[in-house]
Amino acid sequence: MKEKKENWLSVESKLKAMGLVLPEPVKVPAGVKLPFSWVRVRGKRALISGHPPQNPDGSIAGPLGKVGAEVSLEQGYQAARQTALSILGDLKRILGDLDRIAAWLRVFGMVNAAPGFNQLPSVINGFSDLIIELYGPERGDHARSAVGLAELPFNIPVEIEAEVEID
Amino acid sequence: MKEKKENWLSVESKLKAMGLVLPEPVKVPAGVKLPFSWVRVRGKRALISGHPPQNPDGSIAGPLGKVGAEVSLEQGYQAARQTALSILGDLKRILGDLDRIAAWLRVFGMVNAAPGFNQLPSVINGFSDLIIELYGPERGDHARSAVGLAELPFNIPVEIEAEVEID
Amino acid sequence: MKEKKENWLSVESKLKAMGLVLPEPVKVPAGVKLPFSWVRVRGKRALISGHPPQNPDGSIAGPLGKVGAEVSLEQGYQAARQTALSILGDLKRILGDLDRIAAWLRVFGMVNAAPGFNQLPSVINGFSDLIIELYGPERGDHARSAVGLAELPFNIPVEIEAEVEID
Repeated sequence: MKEKKENWLSVESKLKAMGLVLPEPVKVPAGVKLPFSWVRVRGKRALISGHPPQNPDGSIAGPLGKVGAEVSLEQGYQAARQTALSILGDLKRILGDLDRIAAWLRVFGMVNAAPGFNQLPSVINGFSDLIIELYGPERGDHARSAVGLAELPFNIPVEIEAEVEID
Repeated sequence: MKEKKENWLSVESKLKAMGLVLPEPVKVPAGVKLPFSWVRVRGKRALISGHPPQNPDGSIAGPLGKVGAEVSLEQGYQAARQTALSILGDLKRILGDLDRIAAWLRVFGMVNAAPGFNQLPSVINGFSDLIIELYGPERGDHARSAVGLAELPFNIPVEIEAEVEID
Repeated sequence: MKEKKENWLSVESKLKAMGLVLPEPVKVPAGVKLPFSWVRVRGKRALISGHPPQNPDGSIAGPLGKVGAEVSLEQGYQAARQTALSILGDLKRILGDLDRIAAWLRVFGMVNAAPGFNQLPSVINGFSDLIIELYGPERGDHARSAVGLAELPFNIPVEIEAEVEID
């Protein structure tokens, strides 16, 4: 039984205190079929499909394009943060409670990189910083790669795949 | 003990009914050494190396090149389907029975993408559609990413890495 | 209890016999913050972040750039070998003993690929060859992908992410 300390705050209350809203399910562009789950749960493992940055209404968040060209480093950082919210939205829907996540395990951060743009870790930090702020340095810790892809679906600037352990 | 319902059909009988043939082991181009296993099994996990599209005789299936340039979207979809057969061929050889797969878990779909080609999910659907047709919406479900790589080995248009849970 | 045969040699004694040195912790370039762990251990799983090739002093090893352009295939092979040493250095620090690794599971080898360079498996063999030499064909076996990325952090020629099972 997890002991809830006096000053224990749920992830959802932290999100609320930070003024952050979990988005609606991803609305994919018309005509696109995605015949798989955003999160695949088996036993204690939750495998998380590559997610895009989302607006609260579920639409894909702009600006679209390559980081280092149409999208700035700072906008890329925000996109990675919006991708964290996208993933948290799906985890909330499937798990019911974001505190059922016992540990973040693996984060694979993909940047739609303009030629010559290699500040990829600084982009994906938008994801890691938020997860660690919400889950703390133990539960929120993760193994990570942050790399530059040639193309991403719908020309999104960032896509993140992950795995978490659940209670 | 898994109960086999009256209308239960094995994955292999479905493949047969669809006229699909599992290919021979991958024949890599002359001079190339691949010092690892196509499938690594430990306990209930089967980790699947990145596979190419294959012809039934084991050779790498063409057309080669970048999807969106030398290879059309429809040809890319077929390549992803042939990559599913490639993986199933290796799983059959190592597991003996394709129905030992209790659940598909993770699919990482990599497209050799021409500059500006970002219909990556529609390519990798060639894989997902076949797996779900064969395994059904529960066993066949998976977390997935579909992304555009700069280069793939031997200039193949599609490469897919995956993980399944086995009984 | 693992029985140590007469001619059993620890991984570390093999490294010593080969004249190989495990590097110090990664020294990232000034101003870069990496808010995650190089290795994330949970239960029997050790998930390994994408690692760069390293010099023994912990600095990132050159030459930097794209394999097939500024970096030759042979230099790429050496970079992959240095990336194996980088990962082994972190595993040694976190596990205490490199023989606590019961099995290599998954290796995801990423090459910073020049346009048209697709001899990606021959580059990542620098990693696989060393791991198999050190751990043997059973413990050292792994599922693997070797693919060409558009950009990698700090313009490193090779980055490798992995997972191992620990005792």
